[in-house]
Amino acid sequence: MVAMLSPQDAWNRLEAHLQPCATELLARRRALGRVLAAPVRATLDVPAADVSAMDGFAVAGPPGEPLPVAGRIVAGDAPGRVLAVGTALRIMTGAPIPAGADRVLPVEVAKLDDQGRVLFSTGGEPGDHIRRRGEIVRAGAPLVAAGTWLTPGTLAVLATHGLGELPVVGLPRVAVLVTGDEVVPPDQQPAPGQLRDSHGDFLLAAVGELGHTVVHHGIAPDDPAALRDRMVAALAESDILLTTGGVSMGELDHVETVLAELDFEALVTAVAVQPGKPFVAARRADGKWVFGLPGNPASVMVSFWLFVRPVLRRLAGSPDGFWHGALAARLAAAAPGAGPRDRFLPASVQTLAGELWVTPHPPRGSHDLDAYGRGTALLRIPAGAVPAAVGAACEILPLVDWRLGGGVP
Amino acid sequence: MVAMLSPQDAWNRLEAHLQPCATELLARRRALGRVLAAPVRATLDVPAADVSAMDGFAVAGPPGEPLPVAGRIVAGDAPGRVLAVGTALRIMTGAPIPAGADRVLPVEVAKLDDQGRVLFSTGGEPGDHIRRRGEIVRAGAPLVAAGTWLTPGTLAVLATHGLGELPVVGLPRVAVLVTGDEVVPPDQQPAPGQLRDSHGDFLLAAVGELGHTVVHHGIAPDDPAALRDRMVAALAESDILLTTGGVSMGELDHVETVLAELDFEALVTAVAVQPGKPFVAARRADGKWVFGLPGNPASVMVSFWLFVRPVLRRLAGSPDGFWHGALAARLAAAAPGAGPRDRFLPASVQTLAGELWVTPHPPRGSHDLDAYGRGTALLRIPAGAVPAAVGAACEILPLVDWRLGGGVP
Repeated sequence: MVAMLSPQDAWNRLEAHLQPCATELLARRRALGRVLAAPVRATLDVPAADVSAMDGFAVAGPPGEPLPVAGRIVAGDAPGRVLAVGTALRIMTGAPIPAGADRVLPVEVAKLDDQGRVLFSTGGEPGDHIRRRGEIVRAGAPLVAAGTWLTPGTLAVLATHGLGELPVVGLPRVAVLVTGDEVVPPDQQPAPGQLRDSHGDFLLAAVGELGHTVVHHGIAPDDPAALRDRMVAALAESDILLTTGGVSMGELDHVETVLAELDFEALVTAVAVQPGKPFVAARRADGKWVFGLPGNPASVMVSFWLFVRPVLRRLAGSPDGFWHGALAARLAAAAPGAGPRDRFLPASVQTLAGELWVTPHPPRGSHDLDAYGRGTALLRIPAGAVPAAVGAACEILPLVDWRLGGGVP
Repeated sequence: MVAMLSPQDAWNRLEAHLQPCATELLARRRALGRVLAAPVRATLDVPAADVSAMDGFAVAGPPGEPLPVAGRIVAGDAPGRVLAVGTALRIMTGAPIPAGADRVLPVEVAKLDDQGRVLFSTGGEPGDHIRRRGEIVRAGAPLVAAGTWLTPGTLAVLATHGLGELPVVGLPRVAVLVTGDEVVPPDQQPAPGQLRDSHGDFLLAAVGELGHTVVHHGIAPDDPAALRDRMVAALAESDILLTTGGVSMGELDHVETVLAELDFEALVTAVAVQPGKPFVAARRADGKWVFGLPGNPASVMVSFWLFVRPVLRRLAGSPDGFWHGALAARLAAAAPGAGPRDRFLPASVQTLAGELWVTPHPPRGSHDLDAYGRGTALLRIPAGAVPAAVGAACEILPLVDWRLGGGVP
């Protein structure tokens, strides 16, 4: 049993043990969202030759008189054409500049006369509308650094260089084990006194959308021997086990006992946050982790967002951490104060002239799945804060991909 | 040929034709990120009975003296126990309150004496630590509204109510067709004058991460008949076709001609943005769309982010639009001005005390895939703006899921 820690201290204890997972090779088109594990160099000059930036005419110097058009170069033609003195060559965007030409004059300033010669309304400057070989990147130069997060744009850069397989940071496999004698799967009708598992659906979705393989190992009873067997089975197939329930001070809370039996060291057992105070983070010498989340929906979600998500991102090579990525915002509705622990409320967010305005959904308790379930941001109310009025500055953590909900949560 | 439109006018023309896709039924665990197409009602009271909010003792009134403990109620027990007068019942979090009890006194205020009776240091108030049946939601009441975006939290709410299949807005199937005689697939070595397709990788990833089925239909030559055949084939298997290249004013730009032959009505052909001016949005009476993106990487990306992404999100039931979800930020480095068109620069973003600080990556031209490819936000420089200094206010559109890159892009 470790003493109750501040959330930052709790994170620091975890962080000391977080190394990016082992590198794996992945086909480029399967690598979206992963983090590059090693630097990648350019395989070719971009552009590969001096090429035209416009549809127009390649000429040598400012044309003093109408020029006969000696031919046409299109994108895809090999470099090596030569511009004959006193002529122009029709040239398309991306086509190689012929030897002897020093500029491209765009079609917009060109006109053909009745003898098929081209006249220009301006003469241009040397280098006009020419993209120089290697001006974006030179073959062999650093292209994408280790630690880069692979977005659609980065993958496009890597495709240009023909990089088919990429070294990326691996992703830990995650297992979910729900505990509680009273809990039944969501597709079962609960008998009086029972309730359906909602933690499993939350964790499958929240972990799954980060890209991890995640498997639900069912519902374990409040029995130490059975719980132990289920945890051993789940750990055999995963790197990280997330349990729900069984970490409070009640007589039926056995997760900590079983973790000790399984040689896990508890780095965190309680955090000064509300909700989510009983939160167990335990590590074993083989590098496996168990996160024991509390049994109520609010605490499962808050513990996940504050600690488990940044752990998963750090293991995947991303520079995440406690409260990383939080954004300044203003209250669109009054917010309550906080007691001796930092308080975290679910909230929704609107933008007004680009500013974030936050409406807290004050829950009716840690069992208020509805309030937390609907939150698209987490509002932090610092320990000891007094109630705050509309317009007060605050900080929020985005819980969802803001682009998907019409921009903001 | 439609005249050049402002980006907002271009969006308005598209929006007039955007209806959410037809509803489909989807298993709950496959519905993450989708939009609910019809309202859903609660199937049960939450909580299903009056239950204890704490581990403690159920008692009747403030105990005046030590009470014998008459038994134990745990979560999962059916409601219906009765509290005998002059006794206490041990009760666990989530367990049903026995008839006759009016409060729960938590273990923290209880102590057992040497005769096995329980003493309390406080008497509590009526209703203390009791969660009332239906206080979160009542069976039959509205639970999740139509139009709600299904996040991990919402799915947890729906799991509690045992909703196995959900009516969700469908997702259009997307096809990608790259055009250009000079373009070869990324796994091929380009001959002199050729270059590798990067648009395909960008679009596969950028569309795929929104959840759509997206198929790359290869590279079409700059030949109207061949292009037409390829577009017909791609449209046969998709609702939305994204083409790249072939929409400028060059002699080899055939997309608009072919679209007219295929009975598409061009709603937009040019937008006053830089890059991305040549942008074709065309619709057919059967509801299919073709978006003709320009041939250079910067324009493909900007056209996608500004127009195609919000179109896809709107069709999927989300309230997206041009520049929706843009956020106020400050410049961390000087930014250039803009000419007569709104200018969009790739940028990276850091947070400082929750504020967004934006570093533009000024590209060396619309061929500068590197600059655009690395952008994790898009900085808007309004038409006519003069260069701006560090600290100036600006607006950005997030391009990526900010949570994945360590919080901010």
